[in-house]
Amino acid sequence: DVMSAVKLQECRQLISSQLDGVVDFWLKHSHDEQYGGFFTCIGRDGTVYDELKYVWLQGRQVWMYCRLYRTVERFRRPEILEAAKAGGAFLRKSARLSSSASPWKCAFCLTRDGKAVKVQRSIFSECFYVMALDELSRVTADPDMQLEAEQMMEQLIHWVRVDPSGLGRPPLPGDVATNSMAVPMMLLCLVQQLTEGRGQEMAQKYRELGTWCVSQILQHVQREGTAILENVSAAGAELPGSAGRLQNPGHALEAGWFLLQFGAETGDEEIQKTAIEKFMELPMEYGWDGEHGGLFYFLDVDGHCPTQLEWSMKLWWPHCEALIALLMAYRHTRRPELLRRFLQVYDYTFSHFPDDKSGEWFGYLTRDGSVALDFMGGPFKGFFHVPRCLLMCERLLDDLLQTHNE
Amino acid sequence: DVMSAVKLQECRQLISSQLDGVVDFWLKHSHDEQYGGFFTCIGRDGTVYDELKYVWLQGRQVWMYCRLYRTVERFRRPEILEAAKAGGAFLRKSARLSSSASPWKCAFCLTRDGKAVKVQRSIFSECFYVMALDELSRVTADPDMQLEAEQMMEQLIHWVRVDPSGLGRPPLPGDVATNSMAVPMMLLCLVQQLTEGRGQEMAQKYRELGTWCVSQILQHVQREGTAILENVSAAGAELPGSAGRLQNPGHALEAGWFLLQFGAETGDEEIQKTAIEKFMELPMEYGWDGEHGGLFYFLDVDGHCPTQLEWSMKLWWPHCEALIALLMAYRHTRRPELLRRFLQVYDYTFSHFPDDKSGEWFGYLTRDGSVALDFMGGPFKGFFHVPRCLLMCERLLDDLLQTHNE
Repeated sequence: DVMSAVKLQECRQLISSQLDGVVDFWLKHSHDEQYGGFFTCIGRDGTVYDELKYVWLQGRQVWMYCRLYRTVERFRRPEILEAAKAGGAFLRKSARLSSSASPWKCAFCLTRDGKAVKVQRSIFSECFYVMALDELSRVTADPDMQLEAEQMMEQLIHWVRVDPSGLGRPPLPGDVATNSMAVPMMLLCLVQQLTEGRGQEMAQKYRELGTWCVSQILQHVQREGTAILENVSAAGAELPGSAGRLQNPGHALEAGWFLLQFGAETGDEEIQKTAIEKFMELPMEYGWDGEHGGLFYFLDVDGHCPTQLEWSMKLWWPHCEALIALLMAYRHTRRPELLRRFLQVYDYTFSHFPDDKSGEWFGYLTRDGSVALDFMGGPFKGFFHVPRCLLMCERLLDDLLQTHNE
Repeated sequence: DVMSAVKLQECRQLISSQLDGVVDFWLKHSHDEQYGGFFTCIGRDGTVYDELKYVWLQGRQVWMYCRLYRTVERFRRPEILEAAKAGGAFLRKSARLSSSASPWKCAFCLTRDGKAVKVQRSIFSECFYVMALDELSRVTADPDMQLEAEQMMEQLIHWVRVDPSGLGRPPLPGDVATNSMAVPMMLLCLVQQLTEGRGQEMAQKYRELGTWCVSQILQHVQREGTAILENVSAAGAELPGSAGRLQNPGHALEAGWFLLQFGAETGDEEIQKTAIEKFMELPMEYGWDGEHGGLFYFLDVDGHCPTQLEWSMKLWWPHCEALIALLMAYRHTRRPELLRRFLQVYDYTFSHFPDDKSGEWFGYLTRDGSVALDFMGGPFKGFFHVPRCLLMCERLLDDLLQTHNE
């Protein structure tokens, strides 16, 4: 109808101008001209308050710059490509640990000039390394880089599905094998990254892995379909204690749009339905704060208090993921209920997170919606969730508005 | 004067009754009769919401029970001694990792029946193991147990002063040697624990270590004596970035009373003066929230926003440490300013943290003082800071009131 077309047009305008502002902020303040790579600890006024380089955020910024450069006309700018290349070179030179038993293990955090400071005993630095190199190889048409991304992917698959010992976590008798939602989500995201537009042979190569990731993600639907739990056993059973009861609504919503995209590409209606009902509508029900608005960061499915100190805070990224998920679901189904949900998150998000002063977003609000941490970038907030959300929503809104106008 | 005597008497009464209530809560809800040791994840109504056993908290509860049993007439109760013994047996049986390269490395967290779930690459599980066994050996008069505490202490000293490689942290080129305040504080606490009342030979054995710990703690006085910083270089210089600028006012206050006690025992006036001026008065100035009251958890010395999500929250333990520090300083100096400071913290603490329903304290408040996490015990809140504070303040108030009455 006309009402919703006007509203969607209004959303489209705000989202596009926000995307421009956010890109400008990072172009202006985050580039390390001396060593390559990006500063990510940046205050409201653009001050770099810490020079450490977090590998997750280095990889994500390379990916995001390349994705913008590759897919959006107005961002096909030399400075964006140059910064992405310098970031990629920094990663390739410094992220992998020469001292490690495995030549593929990456650091979590580096000094400005690329010396390893910390290593995590998990797979995520390596995942963002794959994302960065694959996307960069698409704009530079560099086959070596694409090959390196695929080689790292093989190592990741080995750690996750065959033998995790190379990650450095000692085996302990009480540490039961756990399916943490982040792992299959991340691998599914990489399957989509590596195969997108690369033809049937590549799709075939990663098909079994993609199906496995989906089945691992679906194990997190628990309590007879009434709850998404962050951690389940390797066999898909509920785990005891706080870890077993943990819910992360923003993460469920992110998994939702990964699944919906996968279901749409493979033509699997059942997955699409589950993605929307279980991974979007459900977390919007239990994850939304009826009192103050916004999505809680963590919850306990039985109503105990989560043990994470930040459980009731409102973080920027769950709201970014919710916007993508709900708008994508609306585009697929045209169910008005999903548009209503999207607008509910939209209103909260755009009235709380954007910082007019800097053009970027605050990342961390208290439960009642006031700013708790006032920096624009930090150890876990870089150039990723906000621009990915704005880019994807801009694209989805274009699609929707085009249909409206036809 | 009469006014302050009346006020101190009032404090003494509230503190003693709080101590009784807190002891009752843990006696009633935390004992695992089947496997020994203690549940520490406990809700307001006494429900155990997670059965994991955190080694820090196991060791601390053994220590606290024994200290109460040994030093306070009304707590010399068989059930307290029995629970401490069962906790000590659980620790000795399960805390040390049989699988580790070092026979002294302890787990961070165990299943209810004692299987290792997680290991930290730091020294603190082992520190609380020493505290527990030494204090338990004092009430059971068990020389083997005391010997084991001293053997573990030797291992700790080796890790901290000779070679940390046994902790499992891979050496990394960008990871510079850091003096984190927690390490010398913890070792100084253990020196006092192991030597208290054990005569000149034991005092002599640990004298050099104690002096070294004090010098390491004093390295954290930075910016020409105007700030206590949590992390400095091994040479005592300021470190770059957020980690280098980090302040933890409650931790500084805790170090303050450790130093004051050490200075009093060794008759070192200079250390006592530094303890009060630099580690108590200074953090009370910069750490107190002028707007809402209470001590911030973390601050950045240059006024940047800390990157810890919980930086502005009000936690129970910094307030416990502040109460001990300021009352101890007042007893030593009788300076009215220090009594005023004590009463400032006292008023905030007792109007915000105690939970009338359970008899225990809330641990985690938002910046404006409302309850953020409503459990009584959790992975980091056990039977330790609250009862240690109440016990020490009761003792200090008795001393002060006795002098008044003489």
